[in-house]
Amino acid sequence: MGTIVNPNVSTREKLERAQAASPRIAGLSTEQKNGLLLTMADAIETHAAEILAANQKDLNGSGVEGAMRDRLLLTAERVRAMAAGMQEVASLADPVGEIIREWKRPNKLLIRQVRVPLGVIGIIYESRPNVTVDTVALALKTGNAIVLRGGKEAFHSNQQLVEILSSVPGLPQGAIQLLDSTTRDSVQELIQARGLVDVIIPRGGAGLINFVVENSIVPVIETGAGNCHIFVDESADLDMADRIVINAKTQRPSVCNAAEKLLVHEKIATTYVPRIAQILSSAGVDLRGDKETIRLAGSVNIRPAGAEDWGEEYLRLCIAIRVVSDVEEAIAHINRYSTRNTEAIVTENEANARRFLRAVDSATVFWNASTRFSDGGEFGFGAEMGISTQKLHCRGPFALAELTSSKYEVIGNGQVRG
Amino acid sequence: MGTIVNPNVSTREKLERAQAASPRIAGLSTEQKNGLLLTMADAIETHAAEILAANQKDLNGSGVEGAMRDRLLLTAERVRAMAAGMQEVASLADPVGEIIREWKRPNKLLIRQVRVPLGVIGIIYESRPNVTVDTVALALKTGNAIVLRGGKEAFHSNQQLVEILSSVPGLPQGAIQLLDSTTRDSVQELIQARGLVDVIIPRGGAGLINFVVENSIVPVIETGAGNCHIFVDESADLDMADRIVINAKTQRPSVCNAAEKLLVHEKIATTYVPRIAQILSSAGVDLRGDKETIRLAGSVNIRPAGAEDWGEEYLRLCIAIRVVSDVEEAIAHINRYSTRNTEAIVTENEANARRFLRAVDSATVFWNASTRFSDGGEFGFGAEMGISTQKLHCRGPFALAELTSSKYEVIGNGQVRG
Repeated sequence: MGTIVNPNVSTREKLERAQAASPRIAGLSTEQKNGLLLTMADAIETHAAEILAANQKDLNGSGVEGAMRDRLLLTAERVRAMAAGMQEVASLADPVGEIIREWKRPNKLLIRQVRVPLGVIGIIYESRPNVTVDTVALALKTGNAIVLRGGKEAFHSNQQLVEILSSVPGLPQGAIQLLDSTTRDSVQELIQARGLVDVIIPRGGAGLINFVVENSIVPVIETGAGNCHIFVDESADLDMADRIVINAKTQRPSVCNAAEKLLVHEKIATTYVPRIAQILSSAGVDLRGDKETIRLAGSVNIRPAGAEDWGEEYLRLCIAIRVVSDVEEAIAHINRYSTRNTEAIVTENEANARRFLRAVDSATVFWNASTRFSDGGEFGFGAEMGISTQKLHCRGPFALAELTSSKYEVIGNGQVRG
Repeated sequence: MGTIVNPNVSTREKLERAQAASPRIAGLSTEQKNGLLLTMADAIETHAAEILAANQKDLNGSGVEGAMRDRLLLTAERVRAMAAGMQEVASLADPVGEIIREWKRPNKLLIRQVRVPLGVIGIIYESRPNVTVDTVALALKTGNAIVLRGGKEAFHSNQQLVEILSSVPGLPQGAIQLLDSTTRDSVQELIQARGLVDVIIPRGGAGLINFVVENSIVPVIETGAGNCHIFVDESADLDMADRIVINAKTQRPSVCNAAEKLLVHEKIATTYVPRIAQILSSAGVDLRGDKETIRLAGSVNIRPAGAEDWGEEYLRLCIAIRVVSDVEEAIAHINRYSTRNTEAIVTENEANARRFLRAVDSATVFWNASTRFSDGGEFGFGAEMGISTQKLHCRGPFALAELTSSKYEVIGNGQVRG
């Protein structure tokens, strides 16, 4: 290994190489980009053995166990899935060059807003090696250079993957840069590189995201945190509520669109609290609750929810339940404690649903569906870069279009301003 | 004066009040918002005498002279123009509530992306008091709370204006917050208030903008800097080039869309350099140039352009001229030195024009028109908040739509994820 992923090149120089590469990547046609993506997919399949061997070195590292081991682990099937993901991105529509809008002014100036690449995208992430491949695919498809700063636990896997992807013939030199993952210095330099990097996307735990948000002078798309709520209204179809709560809490508890809090309307609480507490408890969910919940739940074991519970993202089989007086109290609770990612209301009352959809200040709000659908794939984007929890640039699940900017091209015939 | 613009309220408390007000402002109907804007316009006209008196106090301040005095100065006519501006914003379409897109998934989930207010907008600006009124109008129209941090030289004018605007009946309490302009502490607190403020827009000189960009942990829309270029190509209609260059340089040299650099194709340089140098010099423009320009300009006095000239935004009657070998060298020069705001090509060659429009990495690129049209009003937006020189969220002239975010409202009938 080694000519492309060169440890002797400084972070600064890697960023400058990405910047220098960006106009050449932006200049690739859709056909050229798709061709590169398909060749990369083939290269991943061809070199599956080397990828698995590199991954094995990472798995042998110290402290790699439990959930981290699973996130880090590559299998033949997972390698095939990475290649398939690249083929999928090749099949999606290219957003670059799209005319967003076009109009003519009374003075005959023709103004056209055109979608263009962002330039250089920086991504800081943790253990999962598939993020390396997914990100390269999305960046290349949108005509951007990409700077990757993965986790040190995935060092060998990421080196091998970037070596394979970078070696594809026809890829502009410098298009993919992998930063040193063994030191935090590379993160520091990346987030200070305003002018060389156009956006930084942190993907990982709250600690990583907060560090990037608070220290970056490059614009950031904040992703990830999800303290998601479900409100079961007075008029809810309780069988539907059962299905949605169980799905949102237990189908994949470690992700940011899993439900973490359940709010129950007081008029149905006598019936619904013991019922859902029993169902959740049987599914192995650790329960917390306010006083009223504990009182109503009877024999089901519920621990008192402390003040810190309402703001916490458990990311495991745990949920806190609170009884609220009406939809307004539910909205107020959510807008106070939510991370503004995803929430849901279960109700047959359309007025309450409309009120909830409008007043809850979160990226995605569901009426009668599981919070687990807050996802680029489930939205039909064909891919996902993350879920934005900020309001600038993009909000909610985002993929290709959100990795672009725009410019105004204005055509005149000699107009000057009077 | 004094109950509304209370100097005893801390910056933190003002930000919290703005945050608390934001859902109430977001909940106003278009009719309510337009009614408030028209009442505010009336109030400005009714209280013109108090506004002018407050402005006089500012004008009497120490060090207020020259260009700053003109920027700070209010007249009866300028006060009427501020009121008219509010009426104009009332007449514009309300972007809030617009369905950006809507689609149904195979599982029957209906996904709707809806335009929503950003929440709380912070603006940091310098001397011109009309920015206070314009910003309140744009923020209110888009359902946002606004936090204003004006210049200390406009202290009395801004206090008086905010007092008048805040006193309009029906405006949600706390919607407009004016921060202390006598200390930098209020700026520091504002740019650290992530979670309370959704975006900060600095409007002013490069020093202010860079300070905000480098120190804010709240997302920023970078505005303003404009080292704008005009490239006169080999095939240009030279009479048109004269008109465009003169207009872009001299019509209003202090603004960010004025031309600062002129690039001339070498094949026409022998003719065009002396010609445009003579015209610019006669118009009182201070000229700089590379060696070739100086050689060709003959008797016209041109100072050698230093390395620092190519990156400088003069903001006065000064221009630097360089001879380039072709459109590619022009593009390379611009992409190296430009602030990525606005550039123009003058050419009759469509291929060169298309190449320039695509390859120049700036927010707005003109073909055969003056750079001075890079402006929200000239684009037909009916208003302008600024010109974004960053690629995230919005780029180029921006106004109402760019002061909004979006959310996904998803309607199901019990869907859970498999």
